[in-house]
Amino acid sequence: MNNTSLPKALENAIEHFSSLPGIGKKTAFRLAFSLLQKTPQHNEKFANSILNLQENISYCKTCFHMCNTQEEECSICTNHKRSKESVCIVETSLDLLALEKSNSYFGQYFVLGGVLSPMEGIGPEEIRIDLFLEYLEKNKPEEIIFALSSTMEGEATTTFIAQKIEAQKLPGKISRIARGIPLGSSLQYTDENTLLRAFEGRQGM
Amino acid sequence: MNNTSLPKALENAIEHFSSLPGIGKKTAFRLAFSLLQKTPQHNEKFANSILNLQENISYCKTCFHMCNTQEEECSICTNHKRSKESVCIVETSLDLLALEKSNSYFGQYFVLGGVLSPMEGIGPEEIRIDLFLEYLEKNKPEEIIFALSSTMEGEATTTFIAQKIEAQKLPGKISRIARGIPLGSSLQYTDENTLLRAFEGRQGM
Repeated sequence: MNNTSLPKALENAIEHFSSLPGIGKKTAFRLAFSLLQKTPQHNEKFANSILNLQENISYCKTCFHMCNTQEEECSICTNHKRSKESVCIVETSLDLLALEKSNSYFGQYFVLGGVLSPMEGIGPEEIRIDLFLEYLEKNKPEEIIFALSSTMEGEATTTFIAQKIEAQKLPGKISRIARGIPLGSSLQYTDENTLLRAFEGRQGM
Repeated sequence: MNNTSLPKALENAIEHFSSLPGIGKKTAFRLAFSLLQKTPQHNEKFANSILNLQENISYCKTCFHMCNTQEEECSICTNHKRSKESVCIVETSLDLLALEKSNSYFGQYFVLGGVLSPMEGIGPEEIRIDLFLEYLEKNKPEEIIFALSSTMEGEATTTFIAQKIEAQKLPGKISRIARGIPLGSSLQYTDENTLLRAFEGRQGM
């Protein structure tokens, strides 16, 4: 750019916006620039919402899903209408919310906080595997449903934890959510591994 | 969603992110959630970059482009290497920066701050038309180049200001940037009005 520099405050905001996932330099510029046309009150509230984010969010002491700081347990663990007979183990609160949105499950959850990934230095100590085993020991659910990502790391983590559960002779039937062809997708665009899993998992009609 | 509520602090941040242009509810959720995994120091700096945005940016007293608060004039007006013989009138600082990026122009600019739009209640008083006429009176550029949007409002604003310039007998040759077929685009996908303008503006080779 022909010697034209942006004001430092704008450069600074652009840099922060572009550190967000999926936000490139151009979008970051547009976002920061749009805030310049807002009222200072609006921007103050926006900034405060970011400042308060971590302060006012904590994690449920039972399942580690997000909850308001003043609460000990999340809205799922304290919901007495939900079944206590099963627990579904997920990677993140985002995954939990996706399942909730699908209205497919009405039991308890446990948020593992990631999956094992030797490449990224994430071992059993870095995620809540021991806490999950303690959870099972304490709550003794009848069914333990694995809903970790269908990636190599996710599958390895599922196997690792399932083996631990068996080794410790914890009660409960272990299952995992089905892997197969997503609804609305055509076979010709589905990758071979998904097709393989879909065949392996075929069900009688 | 099956009775699962998000923590209030997260809802609040999502609401603010989704007030940004082009950011929907889903993206806003992803952005706010990503900040939850950052350090409090990172988020504090992010929030400050938003707070400081308006405080530390002001507008050039000559051309009304953005500049740092401690400066009276922007980096373009203070650049002695740039020609003083022409002024290019643009709607916003964003348009100015787009032109700068194209390396097509090395003269002065004037940021009008919008275009006339009776529908949105933007009349001559709401944008810097009088200030632009004062600018022309004072600086007497040899060429006045209109580079407002090629929309109905932009064209009407160009005509309105050009008539004022002529009525006040201000010196300077008036021109406007060419309207025509964008580079790399095919005729069959170009709208009729653009084709009409491209024909009207045809040039000898």
